[in-house]
Amino acid sequence: MAKPKKTPRPKAETPKGFRDYFGAQVTHRAEMLAKIAGVYHRYGFDALESSAVETVEALGKFLPDVDRPNEGVFAWQEDVDADKPGDWLALRYDLTAPLARVYAQHANDLPKPYRRYAMGPVWRNEKPGPGRFRQFYQCDADTVGAPSVAADAEICAMLADCLEEVGIERGDYIVRVNNRKVLNGVLEVAGLSGDDKEAERGIVLRAIDKLDRLGVEGVRALLGEGRKDESGDFTNGAGLSEAQADVIMGFMQAKGQSGAETVASLRGLVDGSQIGAQGVDELQLIADLLGAGGYGPDRVEIDPSVVRGLGYYTGPVYEAELTFDIQDEKGRTRNFGSVAGGGRYDDLVKRFTGQEVPATGVSIGVDRLLAALEAKGRLDTTAQGPVVVTVMDRDRMADYQQMVAELRKAGIRAEVYLGNPKNFGNQLKYADKRGSPIAIIEGGDEHEKGVVQIKDLILGAKIAESATHEEWMERPSQYEVPRTEMIAKVREILDSH
Amino acid sequence: MAKPKKTPRPKAETPKGFRDYFGAQVTHRAEMLAKIAGVYHRYGFDALESSAVETVEALGKFLPDVDRPNEGVFAWQEDVDADKPGDWLALRYDLTAPLARVYAQHANDLPKPYRRYAMGPVWRNEKPGPGRFRQFYQCDADTVGAPSVAADAEICAMLADCLEEVGIERGDYIVRVNNRKVLNGVLEVAGLSGDDKEAERGIVLRAIDKLDRLGVEGVRALLGEGRKDESGDFTNGAGLSEAQADVIMGFMQAKGQSGAETVASLRGLVDGSQIGAQGVDELQLIADLLGAGGYGPDRVEIDPSVVRGLGYYTGPVYEAELTFDIQDEKGRTRNFGSVAGGGRYDDLVKRFTGQEVPATGVSIGVDRLLAALEAKGRLDTTAQGPVVVTVMDRDRMADYQQMVAELRKAGIRAEVYLGNPKNFGNQLKYADKRGSPIAIIEGGDEHEKGVVQIKDLILGAKIAESATHEEWMERPSQYEVPRTEMIAKVREILDSH
Repeated sequence: MAKPKKTPRPKAETPKGFRDYFGAQVTHRAEMLAKIAGVYHRYGFDALESSAVETVEALGKFLPDVDRPNEGVFAWQEDVDADKPGDWLALRYDLTAPLARVYAQHANDLPKPYRRYAMGPVWRNEKPGPGRFRQFYQCDADTVGAPSVAADAEICAMLADCLEEVGIERGDYIVRVNNRKVLNGVLEVAGLSGDDKEAERGIVLRAIDKLDRLGVEGVRALLGEGRKDESGDFTNGAGLSEAQADVIMGFMQAKGQSGAETVASLRGLVDGSQIGAQGVDELQLIADLLGAGGYGPDRVEIDPSVVRGLGYYTGPVYEAELTFDIQDEKGRTRNFGSVAGGGRYDDLVKRFTGQEVPATGVSIGVDRLLAALEAKGRLDTTAQGPVVVTVMDRDRMADYQQMVAELRKAGIRAEVYLGNPKNFGNQLKYADKRGSPIAIIEGGDEHEKGVVQIKDLILGAKIAESATHEEWMERPSQYEVPRTEMIAKVREILDSH
Repeated sequence: MAKPKKTPRPKAETPKGFRDYFGAQVTHRAEMLAKIAGVYHRYGFDALESSAVETVEALGKFLPDVDRPNEGVFAWQEDVDADKPGDWLALRYDLTAPLARVYAQHANDLPKPYRRYAMGPVWRNEKPGPGRFRQFYQCDADTVGAPSVAADAEICAMLADCLEEVGIERGDYIVRVNNRKVLNGVLEVAGLSGDDKEAERGIVLRAIDKLDRLGVEGVRALLGEGRKDESGDFTNGAGLSEAQADVIMGFMQAKGQSGAETVASLRGLVDGSQIGAQGVDELQLIADLLGAGGYGPDRVEIDPSVVRGLGYYTGPVYEAELTFDIQDEKGRTRNFGSVAGGGRYDDLVKRFTGQEVPATGVSIGVDRLLAALEAKGRLDTTAQGPVVVTVMDRDRMADYQQMVAELRKAGIRAEVYLGNPKNFGNQLKYADKRGSPIAIIEGGDEHEKGVVQIKDLILGAKIAESATHEEWMERPSQYEVPRTEMIAKVREILDSH
């Protein structure tokens, strides 16, 4: 007789490119988001939480095509009923596209300008790689409907405040500001502003966006004849003359000893271009407004070498960089680099309403920021484990429950051991796995004498590392105290760690 | 010549059944979740954040069938490459299924027992209705791997602490506990425990689960011949005799004046059933453990009328109910009802590993809890709007930036008006829309005199409601103070609200 077919057991696995976060990984991030939300709130920004799911139509950009409907986003088709096909829905891939939809949908109810912040996961249907996940957090603040660069200045100041609030000290970061309009002026001066120069401008924009990766020589090559990469592949250049390329390179390297010097250099570079002059004026105004608020060049500076996103944004561009060195995974010392960036973009809701609405905003990379704080040893990694009340006599569970209730009432994280209490060693192993600072023991003898044993597990572990057998036997990390003094002794030990 | 075809503009709309949350809707929930997380943490529970996306295989339960792959969950098929079809992925529909997957996947790294909490959105592919959304928050705590009902008692105590922590006063809630094993005993006594009685047991379980909705008479009818509902449809009953139905009804109505009385009634009802006696013992033990921790019947009580979920859980079942009355949307007074529930289920990871692992846990309905606090007027609704610094002279934006920087440094939420400053009335309208408590005005005259005007908008609004024209003209809600005293005066006004 054939055996009945068994349903195979499902695999207990996260989908590829997704992961779980445990304990402090969750709480550290939650604390950071709460701190940043506090700063955003103080600047008058209001919270917005849009749904994770949007119509593909509203999301735009990554419209599914017929062959590969899932390209870029996770998308699926609603099945409303048999007669008519449902809408295509998708998980949001950032927090800006939903902001555009919300602003267009709720225009009448929102204040103008509208300052909003949003934090939450976004999803990308991309090939996962080491350290690259398909779900990750974004933490954005944007001002919609304010054409003045005062809005940009405000966001730069707020960004500096956020970094200090989460524990990056002044001097360990710099917010750098550039302006796409200055670049436009530079392109004009270099003779690249005509309609017939669109191809060249495209190559130039892509080239300067690669400054981080290719360095000055690489960008210079792309501005000229082109560049052969390590694999031997050749990328065509913009074909600029030496003089033209000098102007572009001069822009990226225009940073002087002071803000005034930088502004003077830029003004010289864009001489004769109206848009360029306007861009330099805007940078000057941003610096002035920030200076008035107490945000000097030790925190926010004008820096024409900020090139990332210049191809995308339409006005001021800003980036926060951590300036300290860390050791990378291969033990090499390197600069930590960028943790936040943003800028001005002026076509936020045009897709929906036909009207141009100016907007400027920043996105803080919370996961990178957490990594930075960890690298600097600035995350609170003191033992977060609970005090564990062990179970010596399972019939006296009520006594142990009373102990943990007392501890919790005193604000101390505590739990009673809920596994099988037979093997006491397992209880201590459990406390160890939990990172518990203290175990409490009350067997029959202790109960009769009205005392408890309090074991300092952190001191115990230290002693175990270095103590002689005699020292070990003296058990200097365990204390017998009257039951009535349990809370006081626990507190004393916790304070000593 | 034909006009070029225009791409139609996308609709700015949330997908059906989804919504956006603004301002205090977001922050009130975030504050509530943080408070609950604090209690969970104090009880030794560790945070877990699993990904929103799971394989359909791991989620189980709602496996997509061929005809309607999206039933119950939002699901889509990965397209890995042309040759082999990708996995089916789906958004999680609760936080329990991911816990099962996580526990099976990371078994070696997790402490045993494993206490974990999780909070976040879940998604249901269901027909949306009024007040019913397809994305909503869950806020769960579960203990996995602890067979002892001490784990259940602990969660009941924690639930009481959570409610008090978020602002539900003692006396305004009750945590009620029942036990599926007692019901099993009752079924046995009623002669419904045989393999041949499965159909009747199913009808009985479904009937008592409907007690809230159908009332005693409705349930009684379903235990007997059956019941005709308002629409005229007839539901077949279990066909129990009067005597059998009496036993079942007696169980649901066994609550006495005291816990001891209730336990005595139940013990009588299940006389002769081993599983029933075990269930009563467990209820007794839970009450004892809770009593030892200070959680008396004013907070947690044994109540056999808790029937919701008895069909699903395998041991203790618990539910938190708010006991105060509210006015419903039609102005009728009614009991607020349930805000949290949970119980013991013993097959959490069996699907993955083949092993039975006991688990017990609770889910708090944060949105209902927020509604309750709002109904009781216990949500902080004091003006959260920012102090608005108006722009009287756009060339002195730097001065206004300095003012807001000072205010923020003093911890006061503040912003400068970033719209077009030409029309001053628009600036005040904006402040009104923002719910601003205060507007600050510094025109050229004030600037020369070294003073600012501080307008108390909340007092102003009150006066506008009731004041005579003379009172209004005296402008008692506007103050002129030296610029150096701006912060002090703002603080004084904020404290007076």
